[in-house]
Amino acid sequence: MEHPAITSRKNPLARAAAALGSSAQARREQRRFLCEGARLCEDAALSGVEIESCFFTARARRKYAAYLKSVLAASPEAWQVEEPVAALLSSTKTPQGVFCVCKWPHILQEGVIGFAPRAACLVLEDIQDPGNLGTILRTAEALGVRQVFLLGDCCDPLSPKALRASMGAVFRAGLAREGSAAHLAGLLHSHGYETHAAVPDPGARPVADIDFTKGCHAVFIGNEGNGLRPETAALCRGRVTIPMAGRAESLNAAAAATILLWEMERGKGARGSG
Amino acid sequence: MEHPAITSRKNPLARAAAALGSSAQARREQRRFLCEGARLCEDAALSGVEIESCFFTARARRKYAAYLKSVLAASPEAWQVEEPVAALLSSTKTPQGVFCVCKWPHILQEGVIGFAPRAACLVLEDIQDPGNLGTILRTAEALGVRQVFLLGDCCDPLSPKALRASMGAVFRAGLAREGSAAHLAGLLHSHGYETHAAVPDPGARPVADIDFTKGCHAVFIGNEGNGLRPETAALCRGRVTIPMAGRAESLNAAAAATILLWEMERGKGARGSG
Repeated sequence: MEHPAITSRKNPLARAAAALGSSAQARREQRRFLCEGARLCEDAALSGVEIESCFFTARARRKYAAYLKSVLAASPEAWQVEEPVAALLSSTKTPQGVFCVCKWPHILQEGVIGFAPRAACLVLEDIQDPGNLGTILRTAEALGVRQVFLLGDCCDPLSPKALRASMGAVFRAGLAREGSAAHLAGLLHSHGYETHAAVPDPGARPVADIDFTKGCHAVFIGNEGNGLRPETAALCRGRVTIPMAGRAESLNAAAAATILLWEMERGKGARGSG
Repeated sequence: MEHPAITSRKNPLARAAAALGSSAQARREQRRFLCEGARLCEDAALSGVEIESCFFTARARRKYAAYLKSVLAASPEAWQVEEPVAALLSSTKTPQGVFCVCKWPHILQEGVIGFAPRAACLVLEDIQDPGNLGTILRTAEALGVRQVFLLGDCCDPLSPKALRASMGAVFRAGLAREGSAAHLAGLLHSHGYETHAAVPDPGARPVADIDFTKGCHAVFIGNEGNGLRPETAALCRGRVTIPMAGRAESLNAAAAATILLWEMERGKGARGSG
């Protein structure tokens, strides 16, 4: 099948797609995002993300034919683009040359909370680094925590860097933005959740002492440098910490989240009997 | 106290220091490395790293006076440098303007194995990304695993990116390069260690099933993409895995290492009684 070509970096479709990659505001206003990379675009298609259009270079079409197949099948429109156009769309130094414009998932609209009662929840507040956010979503998926709420000034999970670090977990996460910590905490409590504020305080409860196999639990994790806002931590009924051997605050945000997520699921089913 | 100035990017001292930042070969040949950043340089000084010389900008001297104090006290020579010289030395876009040339730690010379019997060991093989290596060293320190061996083609822990990600843990880690996996495994076994190859194989032993509180343990972790070399995995007496809920291989290397390190120390002393 022949696809129409885009040869100029001034092409309005290419420019609109590039804006979705570079601007969180453009993503928010247009309710679309740009997905880059053969594997990530395939992941979007296979995960049921609504793809609107696809852009690929001639080189990518040969090299990534297997990935492109499901992407092209899911995309109502597709363009073959020249390398300089791919460079415009790309957020990496060496673009693979595969891109999709996708519809912003419904779930990321504020106020839409679709949470499955009794499943473990992760609440992230003010996470600033898209690499951290993506990595945490990837780890949450791998370990089986499927509900993640974004509070406060979390960075955009649909930015190119967050998408890349998430390895597509963003597409499959039960992800919701929530404006009010008090509203979310109230909702969790009314559904019988135990809420835990993760704090770097040796006086809080060591995470390994909490029996996450009983009841249902939500762990709140805050900003990389400053932790949870005090008023958010105060909304939680418990405080949990990771005891450390070295100097205080010596785990990075993603490592701390990894340990908390691991402990939330550790004792359950397939996680082993230890 | 007045310090001599370096105003030109052609100054041979500045050029030699810059080479230590940009070239692993220069570090190896000169047995020195370059440390950048006010806090990291202070960390080097306070951790007993042998500092040979210090470079700082006038701006840094005002802004980071508290950090510079211990650095200058530990450094036999110090130069005030112009901003363009700082840009030459820096591996970041916005340099703080504080740098030290330090002696390569004795421990990183191959064949020097100074390991404390009965303490947990981490063995890393072919870790390619300096950010991953630094993060893993930082996490190991935070969780109390103090002996780390580097096997095969691990990247340089003294590169600017690894140092930065380690938040100074490189300076304090019991770190040793070892050329032969067979020699290291033999040594560990002769000292009574149980050796575990970390593998993404659901048939291996789930990590939570291993009682790390009994005996002493060494966990071997391999390359980000390819895992351990088969011949290295075969040297280990056991195989350990992290059971995953999502798709296979969906944890990144640093997250997997975090979970393994956490489990190695989880049941011990201060880690909580759970």
